[in-house]
Amino acid sequence: MEGYTYLLSLCVILMSTKIFSILSRRAQLPQVVGALMAGLFFGPAVLGAITQHFFNVEFCLQPTQLLSRLAELGVIVIMFTAGMETNLDELKASGTSGFVVALSGVILPLGMGAGLMFLFDDHTSFESAIFIGAVLTATSVSITVETLKELGKMSTKVGNTILAAALIDDILGLICLTIVTGMGGEQDTNLTMVFIKIAGFFIFVGIAGFLYNRYMKWSDRVQAERNLRRYPVLGFAFCLFMAWAAESIFGVADIIGAFAAGMIIALSPKGQYVASKFDTVSYLLLTPIFFANIGLEVILPKMSFELVAFTAALIIVAIISKLGGCGLGALACKFDKRQSYQIGLGMVCRGEVSLIVMKKGMSMHFIAEEYLGPIIIMIIICTILTPVLLKWAFEGQKDAIGDTVFEDAFMTMDQADEITDDLFSRKLQLSSRTHE
Amino acid sequence: MEGYTYLLSLCVILMSTKIFSILSRRAQLPQVVGALMAGLFFGPAVLGAITQHFFNVEFCLQPTQLLSRLAELGVIVIMFTAGMETNLDELKASGTSGFVVALSGVILPLGMGAGLMFLFDDHTSFESAIFIGAVLTATSVSITVETLKELGKMSTKVGNTILAAALIDDILGLICLTIVTGMGGEQDTNLTMVFIKIAGFFIFVGIAGFLYNRYMKWSDRVQAERNLRRYPVLGFAFCLFMAWAAESIFGVADIIGAFAAGMIIALSPKGQYVASKFDTVSYLLLTPIFFANIGLEVILPKMSFELVAFTAALIIVAIISKLGGCGLGALACKFDKRQSYQIGLGMVCRGEVSLIVMKKGMSMHFIAEEYLGPIIIMIIICTILTPVLLKWAFEGQKDAIGDTVFEDAFMTMDQADEITDDLFSRKLQLSSRTHE
Repeated sequence: MEGYTYLLSLCVILMSTKIFSILSRRAQLPQVVGALMAGLFFGPAVLGAITQHFFNVEFCLQPTQLLSRLAELGVIVIMFTAGMETNLDELKASGTSGFVVALSGVILPLGMGAGLMFLFDDHTSFESAIFIGAVLTATSVSITVETLKELGKMSTKVGNTILAAALIDDILGLICLTIVTGMGGEQDTNLTMVFIKIAGFFIFVGIAGFLYNRYMKWSDRVQAERNLRRYPVLGFAFCLFMAWAAESIFGVADIIGAFAAGMIIALSPKGQYVASKFDTVSYLLLTPIFFANIGLEVILPKMSFELVAFTAALIIVAIISKLGGCGLGALACKFDKRQSYQIGLGMVCRGEVSLIVMKKGMSMHFIAEEYLGPIIIMIIICTILTPVLLKWAFEGQKDAIGDTVFEDAFMTMDQADEITDDLFSRKLQLSSRTHE
Repeated sequence: MEGYTYLLSLCVILMSTKIFSILSRRAQLPQVVGALMAGLFFGPAVLGAITQHFFNVEFCLQPTQLLSRLAELGVIVIMFTAGMETNLDELKASGTSGFVVALSGVILPLGMGAGLMFLFDDHTSFESAIFIGAVLTATSVSITVETLKELGKMSTKVGNTILAAALIDDILGLICLTIVTGMGGEQDTNLTMVFIKIAGFFIFVGIAGFLYNRYMKWSDRVQAERNLRRYPVLGFAFCLFMAWAAESIFGVADIIGAFAAGMIIALSPKGQYVASKFDTVSYLLLTPIFFANIGLEVILPKMSFELVAFTAALIIVAIISKLGGCGLGALACKFDKRQSYQIGLGMVCRGEVSLIVMKKGMSMHFIAEEYLGPIIIMIIICTILTPVLLKWAFEGQKDAIGDTVFEDAFMTMDQADEITDDLFSRKLQLSSRTHE
C-alpha cells in the first residue's frame, strides 16, 4: 500500500506537463515536446539524479503500474481519436504510397542498424546485428499524430500517408520481429500463423464495423429520447474491446485496434459527437500521463566512452535511415521533395515497439545489457526531435483547399467550448441576479 | 504482467454499468442502483460464484489495483464536482442543522450497534461492542450525492443539509475512530493531535482558497488569449493536491479535500466551465468504475444460521439507527416530517469508512473474522437501498423557487451538449457537401 502518493504524482504530472507545454509553445516548439520534457525533468532521469547526488535520496516522480496503465489508456485514446478524425477514403487513397513508404522505411533501418553493429564490434553475431536493426525499424506513430493534430495537418495528404505508413509499419515490424525471433530458434513463432492472424484481424474489423454500424443506426432510429451520453460510453467500450481483441486474439498492437474502432465510429451516427467528448478525457487526464510517463521511465545508465560514441552513431543511423528510407519511398510515390522530407520526418519517432524488440532481444541474449543505455537514449532523442523537426518542416506552408478538414473540426471544438463557457457565465449572471 | 485483460475489464464495466443503468431507469429506479448491481453481477459475488459452482473456474471481473485506484479517482471527482456545484452560502446556512443531524446520527448508531452486540453475544467485551457501533456511524456520502444529482435535488435545503451533515459526520467518524482505537491501548493516537490537525486543515483550505482565487483572477486578467484548456487541467491538479494534502498531512478523508477544492474553484473565474468539463471525464470513465468496483469487491462468505440472523438484525439496526438519529436531529432543527425523513434516508448509506473501521477493529482483534460477512452485507444493502428509498421519498415533490439552481446547471449542460452535437452534424453536412 503506497498510500495516497499517487494523487500527488498525478497532480505534479498535470501541472508540470501543462506548464512545460505552455513554455514550449512560447518557445515556438510543439507542446508535445514540453509534455515529454516534464516527465524527463521530474522523473528519475533529472530530478531523481540531482536529489540522489546532493541529498542521497531519490526524490522525484516514480513510474508506477498505475501510471503506466493510464499511459497505455492514453495512447489508446490518442489512436482512437486519430481514427475518428481519419477520413477513410483519403486513407485508402494513401494505402499504396503508405505501403511503399513503410517498406522502404523498414528495410533501410534494418540494414543500416545491422551494418553499424558489425562496424562497432567485429565479433558480433549475425543475429545480434539483425536484432539491433530490428530495434530501429518500428515507428511510434502516437507522438507524430499528436504533433500533426497540434499543427492541424492530420488530414492533409502528407498526414494521411504518414498515418497509413505508420500503421503498415507496425504490421511489418511485427512480421520482422517474428522472423528475427524465429531465426533465434524459438519454435513457437510461426510466420504463416502471423499472416493468418493479421488477415483474421482485418476480417474481424470488417465484421465488427458492420455490426456496430448496424446497431447504432437501429439505436438512433428507435430511441426517440435525446440521451446523448450513451454514445461516448458505448463508443469507448467498443474501442477498449477492439484494442483488447487486437492484442489478445490477433497479436496485433492494441493501438491498431483502437484506431480501427475510431474509424468505425466516425462512420456511424453521432461519430463527431463522440469524438468531441474524448477530447476532454484525453487532455484532462490521459494524454498528459502518457507523455509524462515516457520521460518517467527513462533511467540513464553510466556509460563508457566507447558506448557514448556508439550511442551517437546509433542516433544518427536511426534518424538518417528512417528519414532516408521513408523519404525515398515517398519520392518514389511522386511526392515532391518537401512532402517527402515531411513524411520521412514523421516516421523518425521510435517508441514502445522498439523497447519491446529490445527486451525480446535481451531475454534471448542477442542484445547485451550494455546496449540498454544507447537504445533508450536513441528513442528519447528521436521522440523529442520528431515534433520539433516536424513543426519546422511544416512552417509557413499554406494548405491547399480540402486539406483542412481536421483544422475545421478543431475550430468547431473550440467554438463549442466557447459557447459552453458563454452559456455558463450568462446563466451565472442570471442566477446571481436573481439572488440579489 | 497481467497482459491486456484490463482493457476487456474496462470495456465490460463501461458496457454493463451503462446497460444496467438504463434498465434501472426503465424500472423507475435511480441509475446509480443499476451501476452498483452491474459490479455485483459481473464480479465474484454472482457471476464468479455461478461459474465456480458449475464449471469449477471463477470466470468474472476481478477487482484489481488499477480498478481500485481509478475508483478512488472516481469518488474524488464525484466529490470535486459536488463541491463545484455547492452554493457556499447555502452550505454555511446548513452548518448548524448539519452538525445537529450528524451528531445525533453518530450517537444513535454507536449506541444501538453496541447494544445489538451485547444482545447477540453475552461474552462480548465492551471494546468489541463499541467497535461494531463505530462501524455503523460512518455515512458514505458519495452514493447519496450521485443520487441527489440525478434527482436534481442537490441544491435544495434538504440536499445541503445532507451534504453538510455527511461532511461533519466524516470528521465525527474520525474522532470516534481515534477514541475507540485509543481505548484499545494504541498509544500513537492522540485526540488533541486529531483536533489540531482538523483545525489545521480548515486553515489550510482557507489559505489555499485565497491563493488559488488570487492566482486565477490575475491569470484571467493577464491572459488575453482565450486558451480555455488550462483551467480544467489546473483545477484538476488543484483538486488532486487538496485530496492528497487532506489525507497525508491532516489525516482528513481525501474526498473532503476534493470537495473543498471544488468549492474554491466554483468561486473563482471559469468555475462553471471547469465543472462542465468534469462531467465528461466522470461519466465516461471514472464514475462507472467507482460504482462497479464497489460491487466487485464484494465476496460473500459462507455463514451459519446464527450469523444470518445477526446480519438481518445488523441491517435493521443500521438503517433504523441512522434514519432515526438523523431524522430526529432534523426534526429538532425544525425541518418538517417529510424533509426529516429525506435527510435521515440520505445518511443511511455506508461505505468505505465503515470498511476502514472494520479492518482496524479486526487488526486489533476486537472484531472477530466471522463478522466480516454480516458487515459487508449490511454495507451493500444500505448502499443499494439508499438511492431507491431516496428516490421514493422525493417522488412527486415540487421544489420551491430558488431550489433548482443545480437542475438549471444540469439543463445548461445538456443544452451545451446538444449544441455541440448540432454544430458537428451541421459541419459534417457542410463538409460532405463540399466533398460531392
